[in-house]
Amino acid sequence: MVTLSENEIIARIRRQSASGSGELLVGIGDDCAVIDRGNGLAELITTDTLIEGIHFDPAWHNPELLGRKAAAVNLSDVAAMGGRPRYALLSLALPGDFTESWFASFMSGFQAMLADYDTLLIGGDTVKSAGAIAISVTILGEAAAGHLLLRSTARPGDLVMVSGSLGEAAAGLEFCRRGQAGEGNGARQQLIAAHLDPTPEVALGMVLAESGLVSAMMDISDGLATDLAHLCNESGVAAEIDKESLPISGALRDTAEALACDPVAWAISGGEDYRLLFTVPGGHREKLSALVRDQLGRDITVIGRIIEGEGVTLLDGEGRLDISYRGYDHFNQT
Amino acid sequence: MVTLSENEIIARIRRQSASGSGELLVGIGDDCAVIDRGNGLAELITTDTLIEGIHFDPAWHNPELLGRKAAAVNLSDVAAMGGRPRYALLSLALPGDFTESWFASFMSGFQAMLADYDTLLIGGDTVKSAGAIAISVTILGEAAAGHLLLRSTARPGDLVMVSGSLGEAAAGLEFCRRGQAGEGNGARQQLIAAHLDPTPEVALGMVLAESGLVSAMMDISDGLATDLAHLCNESGVAAEIDKESLPISGALRDTAEALACDPVAWAISGGEDYRLLFTVPGGHREKLSALVRDQLGRDITVIGRIIEGEGVTLLDGEGRLDISYRGYDHFNQT
Repeated sequence: MVTLSENEIIARIRRQSASGSGELLVGIGDDCAVIDRGNGLAELITTDTLIEGIHFDPAWHNPELLGRKAAAVNLSDVAAMGGRPRYALLSLALPGDFTESWFASFMSGFQAMLADYDTLLIGGDTVKSAGAIAISVTILGEAAAGHLLLRSTARPGDLVMVSGSLGEAAAGLEFCRRGQAGEGNGARQQLIAAHLDPTPEVALGMVLAESGLVSAMMDISDGLATDLAHLCNESGVAAEIDKESLPISGALRDTAEALACDPVAWAISGGEDYRLLFTVPGGHREKLSALVRDQLGRDITVIGRIIEGEGVTLLDGEGRLDISYRGYDHFNQT
Repeated sequence: MVTLSENEIIARIRRQSASGSGELLVGIGDDCAVIDRGNGLAELITTDTLIEGIHFDPAWHNPELLGRKAAAVNLSDVAAMGGRPRYALLSLALPGDFTESWFASFMSGFQAMLADYDTLLIGGDTVKSAGAIAISVTILGEAAAGHLLLRSTARPGDLVMVSGSLGEAAAGLEFCRRGQAGEGNGARQQLIAAHLDPTPEVALGMVLAESGLVSAMMDISDGLATDLAHLCNESGVAAEIDKESLPISGALRDTAEALACDPVAWAISGGEDYRLLFTVPGGHREKLSALVRDQLGRDITVIGRIIEGEGVTLLDGEGRLDISYRGYDHFNQT
């Protein structure tokens, strides 16, 4: 019996599926598929499934936050291309003994997250599951075709940038796993909230896409090392990351110190940050940072650069480490 | 603890979701959501999930046929509105020990069914499941906005019609459950194939929609009694079905006789026929039948009529029986 990694599965499906041509601008291999709708408008479509026991645990994920997250992780895929989410479909598989209050809370959270991004629930279905809850969400979005940001268009010489800080969600998950979700100070609660209730970067994605200053983009769902490796692979380039530049929040740093853990490991390999990862020609860096600060009051961070070659390398004062795909692979966890 | 039926769940989601207005022509409550794309073109979107142990059993459903069926049941939702399927997204949750050959066969069947209807796989994801296989498919289709057939537009006086025969898939499932999928004569194999490898009525749906002679339509996935009750409920009407008119194939009739079963029960309550159920103003009946015979070489059958009121009634020589929603409800099976 041979099992395949997630990367191998995606590669296989991709070899059998449609690549971008004609009306289909982008097929498998980016955050969303993209269809040309004429008049310069592109439609974005993405679908993702969350499975109980794999992607969430009801022991610490209450139904309202789970509903919010099921919407957020899919909205993030639209944000990842600079799109505006518009419509959602929800396919929910529930065990026979689910409760009415669970369902009401889940839907309340799901709808509230959609409403925050002016996205309407327009369809879906509900089926019985064999035991575990399975939540499949499809989001439709739109963007000006000229403003779409793909994974495949990074170029040597571009800077690698991220929004927000990295690794908080992974640290928060660790506390949940230890049964400590309800404990701890404000710093720890910040990390736990990053895991339980992530925020899709929709507004930032649109500002970055419309700026015309960004060369490639995706969201970070499987961890920086894995997702940047995807972006490099799609673009046919390599990346170097400067360890000292990684944006690690005070909350993560303090918590890691208290536990004698390395916050850099969380920042590189931790999944579910749902931050944006993007590349910017060097000359645009200042202009873009000023634009984002003006429009959203936020900072974006340079963490490295795109170079010729392949793979992702972490640089620190002492040396170089290949960290390509050192992220979270649900099929091959150690 | 209170559990909800599938109907109650859908009603709840619907109360919280967008109804058709503006660009959104149809929200929750029909086979697909529909978005106005301008120039008279409507986009159709549908999503459905199949769960191992609930919707299929690998003991008798080989992966190639399962892949075909996962595509077919979603293509059928586009056919149900008279649309042309265009694009598919697949979200697959697989247990950690799935085999490479299972995956290859599943994808081969899935892609072959899509190819039969000129539908391209453009995206999706693969995740690990907690044990059971879960297959979520999203299909995008299109139709001329003026040719869409909804569930909500049947009127008293219309005839109720169906394509093909009813009940074969339910009978076939029964043989699979008894461990007799590999046994039996040609008639039995026809029933088993109806369950394992259904055919979406895409060409017929388009002919019916473009004819301008049909008032309302849906596909039969949960059984005639349940699905006709949905159509009546959406249209604010009732229906009477003539027992003697139900299209029951020779294969089903012979098999039922040999087993001393009632084929009418399968035809009324059996799920997964994936036939089209539609209503036709009485004066259009002959013209429509001739058109379908000319264009597709197929027969369509009048099984009853739409009347004022609510509910679905079965008429036979002796009396009347309310059969509303006497179909297959995965949450409340007896």
